[in-house]
Amino acid sequence: MFVHHVYFWLKNPEAAAEKARLLEGLKSLQTVETIRTVHIGVPADTDRPVIERGYHFSLLLIFDNKEDHDTYQVHPVHKKFVEDCSSLWSKVVIYDAVDA
Amino acid sequence: MFVHHVYFWLKNPEAAAEKARLLEGLKSLQTVETIRTVHIGVPADTDRPVIERGYHFSLLLIFDNKEDHDTYQVHPVHKKFVEDCSSLWSKVVIYDAVDA
Repeated sequence: MFVHHVYFWLKNPEAAAEKARLLEGLKSLQTVETIRTVHIGVPADTDRPVIERGYHFSLLLIFDNKEDHDTYQVHPVHKKFVEDCSSLWSKVVIYDAVDA
Repeated sequence: MFVHHVYFWLKNPEAAAEKARLLEGLKSLQTVETIRTVHIGVPADTDRPVIERGYHFSLLLIFDNKEDHDTYQVHPVHKKFVEDCSSLWSKVVIYDAVDA
């Protein structure tokens, strides 16, 4: 498995229209054929010092292997998402993990 | 869905025995009944400035809902893991996400 988890911080989190645009963009990614599991999230209401809850959206994508992840990275749908939405976020943090 | 993703930084990453103990501890968690999906990971070899790859292990747990996550948090298996292994890590970062 290849687990790709992306956390997004919005530039203007109080701008509802921008938030909606990013969510729409994230949803568009689901059509990429090599994705096995997808979850588009927002912070849960858990709150302990070790919990990072400052992000605005999370995108969890699980692929069968790295090759499928690489296909996603250069996929036209992903490229369009970055083009359309990258101006909306101020920060992105990515964690990529493979089987231990 | 409730997505619980934990990233661990080992206190002594060069100590193979400690690494193995943490991995064993992480594997023990898989028996908790409320977990739907589990992935124990290590950083992939992807490497871009936005990618955080300094951690040593990741633990992705997907639950059907927050209630199932809460059950896990107080489960004896989880408590034993924290007891046995918390001395091994120097840092833990958790991201909890619910459906956007």
